[in-house]
Amino acid sequence: MKLSVSEIAKTIHAKVIGDPSFVIKGVSSFDDSGAHDITFACETKYLTNLKQTKAGAVIVPDTFTVDKNYCKNIILLKTDNPKVSFFKLVSKFHPEKKIKSCIHHSADIGQHVEVGKNPIIGSNVFIGDNVQIGKNANLMPGVYIGDDVSIGDNALIKPNVTIMEKTRIGKNAIIHSGTVIGSDGFGFAQNFGKHEKIIHTGYVHIGDDVEIGACNTIDRGTLGMTVIGNGVKTDNLVHIAHNVKIGDNTLIVAQVGIAGSTDIGKNVIIAGNASITGHIKIGDGSIVGPCAGVCSDVPENKIVSGMPHMPHVRWRKVVNIISRLPEMRKKLFSFEKRLKDLENKNE
Amino acid sequence: MKLSVSEIAKTIHAKVIGDPSFVIKGVSSFDDSGAHDITFACETKYLTNLKQTKAGAVIVPDTFTVDKNYCKNIILLKTDNPKVSFFKLVSKFHPEKKIKSCIHHSADIGQHVEVGKNPIIGSNVFIGDNVQIGKNANLMPGVYIGDDVSIGDNALIKPNVTIMEKTRIGKNAIIHSGTVIGSDGFGFAQNFGKHEKIIHTGYVHIGDDVEIGACNTIDRGTLGMTVIGNGVKTDNLVHIAHNVKIGDNTLIVAQVGIAGSTDIGKNVIIAGNASITGHIKIGDGSIVGPCAGVCSDVPENKIVSGMPHMPHVRWRKVVNIISRLPEMRKKLFSFEKRLKDLENKNE
Amino acid sequence: MKLSVSEIAKTIHAKVIGDPSFVIKGVSSFDDSGAHDITFACETKYLTNLKQTKAGAVIVPDTFTVDKNYCKNIILLKTDNPKVSFFKLVSKFHPEKKIKSCIHHSADIGQHVEVGKNPIIGSNVFIGDNVQIGKNANLMPGVYIGDDVSIGDNALIKPNVTIMEKTRIGKNAIIHSGTVIGSDGFGFAQNFGKHEKIIHTGYVHIGDDVEIGACNTIDRGTLGMTVIGNGVKTDNLVHIAHNVKIGDNTLIVAQVGIAGSTDIGKNVIIAGNASITGHIKIGDGSIVGPCAGVCSDVPENKIVSGMPHMPHVRWRKVVNIISRLPEMRKKLFSFEKRLKDLENKNE
Repeated sequence: MKLSVSEIAKTIHAKVIGDPSFVIKGVSSFDDSGAHDITFACETKYLTNLKQTKAGAVIVPDTFTVDKNYCKNIILLKTDNPKVSFFKLVSKFHPEKKIKSCIHHSADIGQHVEVGKNPIIGSNVFIGDNVQIGKNANLMPGVYIGDDVSIGDNALIKPNVTIMEKTRIGKNAIIHSGTVIGSDGFGFAQNFGKHEKIIHTGYVHIGDDVEIGACNTIDRGTLGMTVIGNGVKTDNLVHIAHNVKIGDNTLIVAQVGIAGSTDIGKNVIIAGNASITGHIKIGDGSIVGPCAGVCSDVPENKIVSGMPHMPHVRWRKVVNIISRLPEMRKKLFSFEKRLKDLENKNE
Repeated sequence: MKLSVSEIAKTIHAKVIGDPSFVIKGVSSFDDSGAHDITFACETKYLTNLKQTKAGAVIVPDTFTVDKNYCKNIILLKTDNPKVSFFKLVSKFHPEKKIKSCIHHSADIGQHVEVGKNPIIGSNVFIGDNVQIGKNANLMPGVYIGDDVSIGDNALIKPNVTIMEKTRIGKNAIIHSGTVIGSDGFGFAQNFGKHEKIIHTGYVHIGDDVEIGACNTIDRGTLGMTVIGNGVKTDNLVHIAHNVKIGDNTLIVAQVGIAGSTDIGKNVIIAGNASITGHIKIGDGSIVGPCAGVCSDVPENKIVSGMPHMPHVRWRKVVNIISRLPEMRKKLFSFEKRLKDLENKNE
Repeated sequence: MKLSVSEIAKTIHAKVIGDPSFVIKGVSSFDDSGAHDITFACETKYLTNLKQTKAGAVIVPDTFTVDKNYCKNIILLKTDNPKVSFFKLVSKFHPEKKIKSCIHHSADIGQHVEVGKNPIIGSNVFIGDNVQIGKNANLMPGVYIGDDVSIGDNALIKPNVTIMEKTRIGKNAIIHSGTVIGSDGFGFAQNFGKHEKIIHTGYVHIGDDVEIGACNTIDRGTLGMTVIGNGVKTDNLVHIAHNVKIGDNTLIVAQVGIAGSTDIGKNVIIAGNASITGHIKIGDGSIVGPCAGVCSDVPENKIVSGMPHMPHVRWRKVVNIISRLPEMRKKLFSFEKRLKDLENKNE
């Protein structure tokens, strides 16, 4: 695909500084771009080093100003959100392959299954009884859908995903491969020294516009629901236990674990490998740092880090001290000696 | 389903305080119950707030006493283990769907496979050669069973589970989706700077009454066995390396990792995201705290926490101090000044 | 299988001390060996306790010397790399089962697929369009291969592995079950408070002689590549984010997470459960300790540990002090009192 800078500017509503007739042949990253690629720059480290990209054109923020001579060979396209503009172009240059609607003959489909318009149901898909599949849904090969599940319109369920009975998945959901939704929670009753299995009769409710990464495990409610709110995005290898509630537009990075019955607010960010204990509440808009161990409630709009968690600002200080503990200890011992000397003198 | 309180009392051997003819229509949690639901209360926070549930009846411990007027509208059912009693009722109100025994035509079954009575073998199941499947076993769609595997009676293998060659799984096992049993361990021999693959000829032995969570990875022994004892329960995303031995009735919470050749005792509890190093021994009855890093032997019946692990009581103290390290450091510097002042005066 | 000690010595180029006609019937570990087994000993703890094995023969290093009378009943075979020699024998005693080349009738194979000589394509395998499969490749049951993928010669893809579009996998690769390669990275653009999905057009490039453990997740490049170098080995449940580069012969132990765009050198070792932040560089030959949290660049040939990471030698000291923090704090408070006393006296 070839597009002139002016055609691109129309697509992303950009103001052009430079030659509008220049031809763009591809999209690429700041570092890997060639002469006819377009890229973008938002962060200061890129904006202050525009000369280092070989891209023919760079999308920059509206507010960005630069000396004309500094980068006279680079065409600038100014928009209010260069990252969004750039990835709009990526989609244009890399249009999705259209797959024809079909239900593969090897799919094993149960009774009372309602399928919306234009479905794609791949080979070796299993669908249980009483299932509803929305229009334009794509169940890729090897997907398992249990009884009484509903899958929203335009949902994309990637290969080898397992969705157990009663799960409800909203519109436009993307579920990556290897993920298991609706597994039984880790719940047992102690009875004469044995762990007796508790029947898990609840289910998982996943809202609209959710993306779940690869190899996640999201357990059903023991009784009642595990809830993933609208617009939530999870990275890979995330564990979400029974009866957890996650508010709208929350982001959960890779390898996070959230224990049972915890309530995560809206617009929360939980960084990679953080562990959240059970039965607590994390307020709307809060941020949990990487590898943090959160063991009690976090109020709204707080940033916490560390193990155990504390305000992030404090954790930054603590972190600096931890590696200097040997010196602190040495100092403490030297003080002891000096104190004794002084005490002897003062006797 | 509708049951009178007296019918329920018979089922769970409870003593009734209140109207035995009251009709119960469902089971629910303390917080979500409606007027005709039954729930249970074991913990003090629920028992001291019985008025806060809207349930018509609550199962409480034998030993629980309460002023008659305090909760005169709630029917109490007293048993010695309310949680076990309650989940017995859950099973009664939510009877399991009976699936007819069948072997799906798309299952790919090898030679010399013995299958017990009443098997359920789902679509797209693969079974290798020389496999034994016990009676009433249920291999759900997409399950892979390698050569020379044996699966015990009543085992339930959920969709998309992978069980590699020579694995032995006991009676009544439940293996959740996405789990891989019998993968090769992480073992290489260094040879002229390259990592040469070691052939893993061992296998995994899983006892009776075991439940393995979703997306676990349990490696085969390099030589000899990896052993999961009877009654062991694991949560999701647990990693168990080659030649690990886990004693009976041990509980392993989500995202725990256990390195090669480690020996975990009976009735141990390992909390979420803990890491256990290789070639060590954790004694019977011990408890490992969440996110702990265990790097040496733990004797029997100890509670350890922290990174690196230490007695839990000590870790509780350490945890309190870690967040106060900046103040400790400040104090230390102020002492230095005061010491110098004193030393100058005493010269 | 039965082999005389002299036959074995020929196979592994060993010098024999003891009876060359003695018959060996099996290979086993130091602790589990019987009278007609052969085992090996490299580490001092085994070499100094040779009497404790019941093996008939032990492979030991060339340089090992021992008093004749100390272990007169054990035949010694000396080689320069006993571990490599031993596992060569393991392969001899446990020859791999030969599987006949075949393409199972249930495999769902797309258009323009080139398959090399002697392929094994199992039941329920899905292969997309424009795929190249090398000679002797083995795609086990339930494997998903997306469009435009290439798989090298002799590759072994275990059951239920998912390989998404455009992935390139080198020769002799082994990919264990449950692993997902080429999932979309965790990348969103913020747009009016919503997380807009970024199209991921990159891919994953995996070199030759790579082994990837079970339930790994390796994301495609957002733009450009995620690269796993030649000879890299990963353990189970490892997460490798978009655009990560991993150098040749690097080892990554279980449950490690590597965030986006990080560059790991050659011959690096990353121990279990370590977390590596995004956009950093870890130099060739470095070692990252277990559970470490690496949050900035690590130069070549360094050993780092701890959270946050620091030189390993320092971390060892810090670790010792952390558990003694309560005593340090107590001492600090006692100093305060003693300082005050001295100050009062000196007023």
